[in-house]
Amino acid sequence: MNTFAAEKKTGTKIVLGANQYGKAEVRLVKITRDTERHEIEDLNVTSQLHGDFLAAHIDGDNRHVVPTDTQKNTVYGFARDGVGSPEAFLLRLGAHFTTEFDWVTGGRWAAEQYFWDRIQEHDHAFSRNKSEVRTAVLEIKDGEASVLAGIKDLTVLKSTASEFRNFPVDRYTTLQETGDRILATDVSSRWRYNSNAVAGGDVDFNAVYDSVRELLLAGFAAKHSFALQQTMFDMGEAVLEAHPEIEEIRFSLPNKHHFLVDLSPFGQDNPNEVFFAADRPYGLIEAAITREGASAAHPIWENTPGFC
Amino acid sequence: MNTFAAEKKTGTKIVLGANQYGKAEVRLVKITRDTERHEIEDLNVTSQLHGDFLAAHIDGDNRHVVPTDTQKNTVYGFARDGVGSPEAFLLRLGAHFTTEFDWVTGGRWAAEQYFWDRIQEHDHAFSRNKSEVRTAVLEIKDGEASVLAGIKDLTVLKSTASEFRNFPVDRYTTLQETGDRILATDVSSRWRYNSNAVAGGDVDFNAVYDSVRELLLAGFAAKHSFALQQTMFDMGEAVLEAHPEIEEIRFSLPNKHHFLVDLSPFGQDNPNEVFFAADRPYGLIEAAITREGASAAHPIWENTPGFC
Amino acid sequence: MNTFAAEKKTGTKIVLGANQYGKAEVRLVKITRDTERHEIEDLNVTSQLHGDFLAAHIDGDNRHVVPTDTQKNTVYGFARDGVGSPEAFLLRLGAHFTTEFDWVTGGRWAAEQYFWDRIQEHDHAFSRNKSEVRTAVLEIKDGEASVLAGIKDLTVLKSTASEFRNFPVDRYTTLQETGDRILATDVSSRWRYNSNAVAGGDVDFNAVYDSVRELLLAGFAAKHSFALQQTMFDMGEAVLEAHPEIEEIRFSLPNKHHFLVDLSPFGQDNPNEVFFAADRPYGLIEAAITREGASAAHPIWENTPGFC
Amino acid sequence: MNTFAAEKKTGTKIVLGANQYGKAEVRLVKITRDTERHEIEDLNVTSQLHGDFLAAHIDGDNRHVVPTDTQKNTVYGFARDGVGSPEAFLLRLGAHFTTEFDWVTGGRWAAEQYFWDRIQEHDHAFSRNKSEVRTAVLEIKDGEASVLAGIKDLTVLKSTASEFRNFPVDRYTTLQETGDRILATDVSSRWRYNSNAVAGGDVDFNAVYDSVRELLLAGFAAKHSFALQQTMFDMGEAVLEAHPEIEEIRFSLPNKHHFLVDLSPFGQDNPNEVFFAADRPYGLIEAAITREGASAAHPIWENTPGFC
Repeated sequence: MNTFAAEKKTGTKIVLGANQYGKAEVRLVKITRDTERHEIEDLNVTSQLHGDFLAAHIDGDNRHVVPTDTQKNTVYGFARDGVGSPEAFLLRLGAHFTTEFDWVTGGRWAAEQYFWDRIQEHDHAFSRNKSEVRTAVLEIKDGEASVLAGIKDLTVLKSTASEFRNFPVDRYTTLQETGDRILATDVSSRWRYNSNAVAGGDVDFNAVYDSVRELLLAGFAAKHSFALQQTMFDMGEAVLEAHPEIEEIRFSLPNKHHFLVDLSPFGQDNPNEVFFAADRPYGLIEAAITREGASAAHPIWENTPGFC
Repeated sequence: MNTFAAEKKTGTKIVLGANQYGKAEVRLVKITRDTERHEIEDLNVTSQLHGDFLAAHIDGDNRHVVPTDTQKNTVYGFARDGVGSPEAFLLRLGAHFTTEFDWVTGGRWAAEQYFWDRIQEHDHAFSRNKSEVRTAVLEIKDGEASVLAGIKDLTVLKSTASEFRNFPVDRYTTLQETGDRILATDVSSRWRYNSNAVAGGDVDFNAVYDSVRELLLAGFAAKHSFALQQTMFDMGEAVLEAHPEIEEIRFSLPNKHHFLVDLSPFGQDNPNEVFFAADRPYGLIEAAITREGASAAHPIWENTPGFC
Repeated sequence: MNTFAAEKKTGTKIVLGANQYGKAEVRLVKITRDTERHEIEDLNVTSQLHGDFLAAHIDGDNRHVVPTDTQKNTVYGFARDGVGSPEAFLLRLGAHFTTEFDWVTGGRWAAEQYFWDRIQEHDHAFSRNKSEVRTAVLEIKDGEASVLAGIKDLTVLKSTASEFRNFPVDRYTTLQETGDRILATDVSSRWRYNSNAVAGGDVDFNAVYDSVRELLLAGFAAKHSFALQQTMFDMGEAVLEAHPEIEEIRFSLPNKHHFLVDLSPFGQDNPNEVFFAADRPYGLIEAAITREGASAAHPIWENTPGFC
Repeated sequence: MNTFAAEKKTGTKIVLGANQYGKAEVRLVKITRDTERHEIEDLNVTSQLHGDFLAAHIDGDNRHVVPTDTQKNTVYGFARDGVGSPEAFLLRLGAHFTTEFDWVTGGRWAAEQYFWDRIQEHDHAFSRNKSEVRTAVLEIKDGEASVLAGIKDLTVLKSTASEFRNFPVDRYTTLQETGDRILATDVSSRWRYNSNAVAGGDVDFNAVYDSVRELLLAGFAAKHSFALQQTMFDMGEAVLEAHPEIEEIRFSLPNKHHFLVDLSPFGQDNPNEVFFAADRPYGLIEAAITREGASAAHPIWENTPGFC
């Protein structure tokens, strides 16, 4: 995003920096009913524009302010021609806004997608599969489109094959080593596609999403875990090894603590069977896993909530 | 619950009415690891006692107040011997508290159960299935145990075969009739078991739950809907017809509106394909469906949140 | 609510029991701008009708189904003439629906009210005061109007003058007695007005709300607490003593645990200064406090979420 | 954060990028009871460390992994000596971790603070003031401490003196111009302190917070608004003009739509009195307002959730 010098009458040296605006959380349900077997696509779309909006900020002059209501309408209008994948849909929206309005030089478009299963293989009845949410972000800047895909709210747990030992000890350390613990997290991950692959139209976003999902689950389940950091790295590595079109993957993984309950006051043993699932605090483990030579800090991450 | 006359020194005629207390939301994860193929049970348990607690209210005399912390400990201690089903687990807890303490004449115990799927058929790795939450309530009163089972947060949608017509019109009516709309709701339902069946130990709570879940989904999907009320009645009727051990079933069903977007200003048609999924307000349709002669207002419903 | 026998063609003895339907969470903001000093009223209104809706359930016949959309419109139309208080507003709505439609024999209307403070005494700029939410419920049944008022989400804490001792001990008891603890709760309370006072128009609902709020806060703060039950009873008693128009008051009070952190491993003392505020589990203390002779179980409580 | 090359045995060129880990949402309540008039400080603290954690990611070698449990303990241990302000508290924590452990080169510490009011001027009874949440972030990188302070969840509304006109119109525009609308938002803002002022210990964080809060409210209320962008810029400019120790301020402001209800079908007018408060979608207006010459993209923003 560009910075514009504000020609304020006050003469102060206070200027407008990075800025964006748009419509958030446009809830779109698209039914495809070409045949009796309907398809459903359920999205939550956010559109934000970058460009020359200085006059609105300084003078309340809205001649460049494409209304957020118009952005919403455009989402619905474009959906009439189908969604396909959240990434493809955002690319169509982004191309529209950056060509339709001279002063719109880029923007950020994001979507969540919610999944539905057929009810007992019914043609037009569905139940929502809430086990995860799919995410997508498009940022257009300096004429280049960058795309993030992601998954969130995917809760996973291993009931053994996880330990935590050999950590440093200082005055404030009271934690005991454990050779067998529950490891649980809510997977929140985003991966960034190679820009050339995106520009070339070579990415089957839906197929890659399905594959990454399975790789993440397999990577979580597969190996003995000495640290959540290690398990996370394995998960990311598996994705990058399988998908050359992905440059980088990031994770934000809460370590959802399950504390073994001390039943000895009641005359009972507890051989890793009865646990208290705690809410807060929780560990929080975050990292980027990248191909060597990938840009260390791609700008699309700047406005992405949290670490990823 | 009984009402006790408060012998307050002030001489006012203000008395303690119905009351209960306990520990809410005890988060319990039970791993069964008899073999290498682990099983997981994930519950959120609430225990509340009824009885003679007048002195605590009037004088702060806690000699009858079994600490809520003790109730929590008991949940964990009992889990060491397994859960089995939320209903069976609550029945064990309820029997314990009402026999262990003379002045505890009854109580209310409730649980939510969260489901987990195996990750790729792994022995000890799981992902949470969030598509629904299972609920259970036990109330013991006057020596009788009443049991509710339930399901909530099960979101379902039909993309056609729903209409709404022939409604009355008054000064405030602006709604147009529709012959083809999206019908969507979050199923929240509780059913009450026949007390004799519960007392006789004849109910396979897990099997009935699985069956009711499928009947509700099938009942939602099956027939053309002229009103959500009608679809709801069909769902309940199917459950009662298949399960003689169930006396009554209640529903609280939001009508989650999906509004057809008017695309005509953009020169587009919209043959029931593009919808805006609204948040609030929503319709709210609630009913009890019962066997003829079942008690019209069983007391277990009194402290159940909402209509069911 | 009445029970109707379903004349189902199937011949089964499955019938429709209690039922209601309507529009939930109608978000209404009313600005009164008779002068330059605007007033704001911010409500969330739910309308549900009781009556003869059997045909809709059995046959999908909607001739009695006043659309929930019409109920929403009516809320907005009635707001044009002012709100005044949530209770007064609901009474107007209830009277309308039960007289406008022959088959509507009663209903349940509820509202939440959100508060706003003026920003620096500005005429038309406000900031929301989120410290509490005001609630109201009207139920009309058999021609009688019952009114509940309430408060919720009012979080209070005492940093001393609370203890918990002399409780019974069993096998599962590990809790230690404490002579000085933090006592914290989210006050959720509803009080039921005398029906004659409501019918006579004698209640100044806004003034009583303000008074009850202050009495609850004072009752929480005032006395040394030997048990949350005792503090709760004191709070309720103070309200009933001051307000003869109130028949009964109910509470649902979580005991929000604040655990003293053991700093001794770090060589530090902790004289009741550093606490961990826990989320779950929490104690849950609930009671009705009534005038002697008040009906033990007024039907309006049946469909009220939770204990109160 | 540094990037380390992973010497993976696989020989792939997949490397660990930016990473951090720690304990999130440590709920801390600190009572200061030096006199009978207690003080309360209520915080939610997150600690995350940056440094050389490569071995944990690659080999599950935890010798550098200061346990998140230790980080939690340190928060409580440090609180024994007082909090003072969230920013000062985080600065003490950050200095500790970056000096105690050689391989910890920096980190990110964050806090939310919740406010409490005295109940009727009581010495030790409080009610929570939920009208806003105070936030603070410290990031230490390359030996320099950067500090963000912030406010969130501050909901404000103007019932007049806001318009939106003269916007561009395209095929998808259906919005009508309005000369008088409700303007409402939830203020979410963060400001970055001058690093020299922080290093010099010159900032009275509590006093600046109180002042900024008032300036933001005044800035929102004061002027006629032609665009939320303009009002936002005015708010930020007022803060920077009054506080030379602040380099930059950012906002993320939802435009919370209040739609005028069309009452004409019911034969009623609606002179800007009756509104429907919508949930989603909402406008979203975001900007940085900076002193000329301030770094355009200070790295502390990278890991801050959302735009600010």
